[in-house]
Amino acid sequence: MEILILVTGGTFAKEYNELTGELFFKDTHVGEMLNLGRSLVTTTTLTLMMKDSLHMTDEDRSVIAGKCKAVKQDLIIITHGTDTMVETADFLAKEIKGKTIVLTGAMIPYKFGSSDGLFNLGSALAFVQTLDKGVYVAMNGRYFHAGNVRKNKKNGVFEELK
Amino acid sequence: MEILILVTGGTFAKEYNELTGELFFKDTHVGEMLNLGRSLVTTTTLTLMMKDSLHMTDEDRSVIAGKCKAVKQDLIIITHGTDTMVETADFLAKEIKGKTIVLTGAMIPYKFGSSDGLFNLGSALAFVQTLDKGVYVAMNGRYFHAGNVRKNKKNGVFEELK
Amino acid sequence: MEILILVTGGTFAKEYNELTGELFFKDTHVGEMLNLGRSLVTTTTLTLMMKDSLHMTDEDRSVIAGKCKAVKQDLIIITHGTDTMVETADFLAKEIKGKTIVLTGAMIPYKFGSSDGLFNLGSALAFVQTLDKGVYVAMNGRYFHAGNVRKNKKNGVFEELK
Amino acid sequence: MEILILVTGGTFAKEYNELTGELFFKDTHVGEMLNLGRSLVTTTTLTLMMKDSLHMTDEDRSVIAGKCKAVKQDLIIITHGTDTMVETADFLAKEIKGKTIVLTGAMIPYKFGSSDGLFNLGSALAFVQTLDKGVYVAMNGRYFHAGNVRKNKKNGVFEELK
Repeated sequence: MEILILVTGGTFAKEYNELTGELFFKDTHVGEMLNLGRSLVTTTTLTLMMKDSLHMTDEDRSVIAGKCKAVKQDLIIITHGTDTMVETADFLAKEIKGKTIVLTGAMIPYKFGSSDGLFNLGSALAFVQTLDKGVYVAMNGRYFHAGNVRKNKKNGVFEELK
Repeated sequence: MEILILVTGGTFAKEYNELTGELFFKDTHVGEMLNLGRSLVTTTTLTLMMKDSLHMTDEDRSVIAGKCKAVKQDLIIITHGTDTMVETADFLAKEIKGKTIVLTGAMIPYKFGSSDGLFNLGSALAFVQTLDKGVYVAMNGRYFHAGNVRKNKKNGVFEELK
Repeated sequence: MEILILVTGGTFAKEYNELTGELFFKDTHVGEMLNLGRSLVTTTTLTLMMKDSLHMTDEDRSVIAGKCKAVKQDLIIITHGTDTMVETADFLAKEIKGKTIVLTGAMIPYKFGSSDGLFNLGSALAFVQTLDKGVYVAMNGRYFHAGNVRKNKKNGVFEELK
Repeated sequence: MEILILVTGGTFAKEYNELTGELFFKDTHVGEMLNLGRSLVTTTTLTLMMKDSLHMTDEDRSVIAGKCKAVKQDLIIITHGTDTMVETADFLAKEIKGKTIVLTGAMIPYKFGSSDGLFNLGSALAFVQTLDKGVYVAMNGRYFHAGNVRKNKKNGVFEELK
């Protein structure tokens, strides 16, 4: 059993540029986080893109779907910005069958001391090992089926549609 | 669905006493960690004892087992020192049927900046929601069935017996 | 001996808004930082404004200078954005005599785990207790006289003019 | 102007051994801390010993005094455990003339997220650049003359004798 971790950007991956005072993408922190969690799950991490999810297009989503289909792994975690995580989950659910795909992200950049990212990565890694084939969003310690989840923009949490 | 989190101590819960220079137990950090992870899972946290797992006796384990049986929840996470987590899992597996019980802990105290605790709590919370009834150890991003796990004392990681 | 800490904003004070993904000013962290440093110096902290130093005008600088003159304390630390800290130091040096004024700030927000802010506050607090009357910039572990310091925008460090 | 930083151990330098659950000395973190503070002061760091200050003997203090005399630098910071920092300051004050020596330390190990160490190092670095020749303890944001300072064991803070 091997798990693929596809990095697509999002708050999860942002850092602070001390010369410009802006947040930016450098490298993924997934490797560092797996070390911190002393993970011994067999994983491969692949950075596909580094995008704010507000800037993610259906073209980007096709690239993600294509990669998910092309790879040999059946268990896939996708780190993704939270703003359009739900849209990407819907897109993938239509395109991909026979794999377990879990999207996760963070509200606070990992490089901030008080990020939810490490918690979310731990839960995504557990969900991808245990859930049936399908596409899921893993946030707030919970999992949601693609098609039955939205991000509540007012309070920043994920909830079921019904 | 409600999850009970039983706190029994372990490295997870230790703090640094700046007057004596020693590590000690104060309060559980589980609530703080769930907030950090923005958990929206319905949980109740109960501190049963605050013990170094090296000092945990079969009497203590009976108390834990008794509590697991007595409570109404069928999904239970137990935070526990890693040194005898395996022994407690074995003990509980013999005593309790019909519930999903996941033991987890940490190699580094949560109050240290670089703890694996938040990652482990995230994964334990996911495992307890998805695994079949039984007793498990959740460490290193993986889950192990009670009776088929040991702690490798040399490198501090958990592994299957066979 | 009492030290006044005047808060004017800057990177030092920024936080991450997890709903918008932007950095913003909430409250000053100076009190929290003094606690973390176990400071027992007698200090009063006063938030005068919360400004990015790029947006600081000479009108703002007049407000700062006026406050420095009006207060009873002769030892004053000013937390300030680094981009125009030098300009404010020059301005104050022309306006104020007979007080020791130390400007400091941070390259990384305190709320990020890896900020230089705590180090800078520690050094500013020491400098204000020991330097002669005058206006100074305290950054990079060093102190600079107003009128003989610039921020090197390329590498983000402070250096003498000559 | 060059500053020597003599490392002698103390809480400052302790780390957590995750296999034994005990605190221990590995390497000094002074270099890492100076980087975090973006220090541009010219410093040389030298690890002389790695001792709990409760175990520090007058023989150890002679070694420290000998080193302080032998080196070319006239500005010296000594990182030291807080329990007997006062005794070492007294010892050095009798032995060494013509140099500025500042002892500092921490109540919480630097490797814990919430250490006072970074604040103390920032203040010690400022004090050593500005105080007259003599031996000092720099803790709690303040400086104390050797011979006129004690550690209040009850609350862990430093205070004047009179």
